[in-house]
Amino acid sequence: MPYEVEQKFRVADSAAIARRLRELGAQEAGAIEQLDHYFNHPSRDFAHTDEALRLRQVGQSNFITYKGPKLDATTKTRRELELPLSPGSDALAQYAELLTALGFRPVAQVHKTRRRYHLAWQGREIEIALDNVSGLGDFIELELSADEDGLELAKPAIASLAATLGLTQSERRSYLELLFAKAHV
Amino acid sequence: MPYEVEQKFRVADSAAIARRLRELGAQEAGAIEQLDHYFNHPSRDFAHTDEALRLRQVGQSNFITYKGPKLDATTKTRRELELPLSPGSDALAQYAELLTALGFRPVAQVHKTRRRYHLAWQGREIEIALDNVSGLGDFIELELSADEDGLELAKPAIASLAATLGLTQSERRSYLELLFAKAHV
Repeated sequence: MPYEVEQKFRVADSAAIARRLRELGAQEAGAIEQLDHYFNHPSRDFAHTDEALRLRQVGQSNFITYKGPKLDATTKTRRELELPLSPGSDALAQYAELLTALGFRPVAQVHKTRRRYHLAWQGREIEIALDNVSGLGDFIELELSADEDGLELAKPAIASLAATLGLTQSERRSYLELLFAKAHV
Repeated sequence: MPYEVEQKFRVADSAAIARRLRELGAQEAGAIEQLDHYFNHPSRDFAHTDEALRLRQVGQSNFITYKGPKLDATTKTRRELELPLSPGSDALAQYAELLTALGFRPVAQVHKTRRRYHLAWQGREIEIALDNVSGLGDFIELELSADEDGLELAKPAIASLAATLGLTQSERRSYLELLFAKAHV
């Protein structure tokens, strides 16, 4: 299973970050709307095990995503498995019904507009997402895919790009966790 | 969610049954190979709750199926939800990996060749499957789909067809249960 090495930062001025990305030669891959439906497990609390299961809608496309516990204190390195499902809202409702029949419980929805960029950086291809998240504001995510052997080399590349972009306010919590934190203040 | 009203019988002479079906005007819809991968739940034992979760391969097509507990002592009436997944063996392995990551445990495989028939019977369309199951032998399944209101009307139709075909050896256990029973003799 591939791993994602990912680091997220809060962004004060997303227009300024977008400008800086273009200066660095980043290729914009367009904006998409993502609606994520998160579920908790029938017998283990994902908030404690640091896992996640979600159904994701991107336009008419649907996906199921499992994220394992974070393996590392700085980046968000973790096991991730994202698989396509049949398209459309009706199909999504049926997959949700199947998860519910198995004892998974819907816990929250995360709605965001994501602008995606690709950037060649230190001989690697970094995936960048500039996110506006309903109820939370603006964030940037820097991500590299790596197999187990490549994990240690991926982290310095991410760190150097973050420094170049002047990103300091690292956020290790997921959008889901941030929404929960906000709801329980 | 739709319900299936289904009854299964052991068959001594499948060629004779196939002949009788043709005499009654059944339309043969072709033979298919089905390979079912069954999983048990992370925190409830499906053998006790009378549920089932499986990944089904039919040629290159993949499906995920949840079956709820049987609602009735005679027929196999139960809640069933079968949803398509991406095609191919590689995709199937990934869905299996996702289920495993969520704590589902692979328990058994059921491999069968299924000859399917449609039969107009007493104003209803009955689906018939003549199955040869690896390690178990020949069976016939008679099935009607019904919503909650139609359940009580569906059962006499199935019973009358079974009587007409001379089927007496009703088998309420699933192929999975029969394989387990055989393994634990």
